[in-house]
Amino acid sequence: MNTRIITVSREVGSGGRTIGQRVAERLGIPCYDRELVAKIARESGLAESFIKENGEYAESAHAFLFNWSLGTGLESGVLPISDQLYLIQHNIIQELAEKESCVIVGRCADWILRERADCLNTFFHAEMRFRMDRLLRAYGEKPENPEKFLHDRDAKRKTYYRHYTGRQWGVAQNYHLTADTSVLGIDLCVELVLEAARAAGSAGQ
Amino acid sequence: MNTRIITVSREVGSGGRTIGQRVAERLGIPCYDRELVAKIARESGLAESFIKENGEYAESAHAFLFNWSLGTGLESGVLPISDQLYLIQHNIIQELAEKESCVIVGRCADWILRERADCLNTFFHAEMRFRMDRLLRAYGEKPENPEKFLHDRDAKRKTYYRHYTGRQWGVAQNYHLTADTSVLGIDLCVELVLEAARAAGSAGQ
Repeated sequence: MNTRIITVSREVGSGGRTIGQRVAERLGIPCYDRELVAKIARESGLAESFIKENGEYAESAHAFLFNWSLGTGLESGVLPISDQLYLIQHNIIQELAEKESCVIVGRCADWILRERADCLNTFFHAEMRFRMDRLLRAYGEKPENPEKFLHDRDAKRKTYYRHYTGRQWGVAQNYHLTADTSVLGIDLCVELVLEAARAAGSAGQ
Repeated sequence: MNTRIITVSREVGSGGRTIGQRVAERLGIPCYDRELVAKIARESGLAESFIKENGEYAESAHAFLFNWSLGTGLESGVLPISDQLYLIQHNIIQELAEKESCVIVGRCADWILRERADCLNTFFHAEMRFRMDRLLRAYGEKPENPEKFLHDRDAKRKTYYRHYTGRQWGVAQNYHLTADTSVLGIDLCVELVLEAARAAGSAGQ
């Protein structure tokens, strides 16, 4: 394949977003992360804060059932807001991939673009200490219990991903490249993604 | 950390073993794969063919229970042969890691050496077509149904790994680096492992 799209999935605080941004800068292509949220907000009319919280995270599998049980589901023929948001994101991500080379961070993009042969899927994770440190230093967040905060956020991403893709989040076989940023370092991870994007398709045995 | 040990886990036919051998050659250190089987055979008195088949693969979780139920288990105070083999492998892998820098292919080495800070854990996987092709060309094996053969072998590795480590085989977070050899190519994967081994420990943010 000729890599045009790079998707970046990541544990919270692993630095995956930073890697996505740096890779995009090096390639001179856009990185869709916060810009994606703004785009979804414009097209859906939903608040950015709502999209941030509901476009990648799900409280639990029960939350989806609860949405349906409120009568916004099958009976009324209207999709619950979480499903509507997913569909809008889904369509925007497919349109972006069709239109231009780009990096897309999160939001099940690896799954949404799974039929494309020009897409390199990556996943980043890190040790808890590294993530807690980044949470504080890079994101400026100071939750009461950082470890619990990070575990909870991961669990919600996992639930969201499982619900909409049927796949398990973080399984190596779903990605072309995964790396531990706390051991390899963010700088090297940027280089690894660039090398992988260059090599993909010309792979020999 | 200062990487001294590199463990290579892999889907059958992904080329992980080849990557391990090439990395070891480049670093001028031994690669323990078939050599490990021979070493285990010498120390255990078991046949190499038995070790190959039972040192990484398990029919099913029930097979372990069946072993116990044969009376070689708790009642007699003697461990079933599969557990004895695991313990011998476990001890040999720990001794090797203590003694010298090396690459170790398979056999739950990532888990066995999990307490070491000088160990880089990698995992390789590939698309089915690539693996079937390698099965035929690189290993010279011609099973009647190659796809079923590969699925079965993976399933047995997964069962074995789960039984002895309690972890899920192939989850990205268990490894410092994972890659799809069919998309990135074996040559690049060798370079990625070498770069990761060099960088590990000096990781910055």
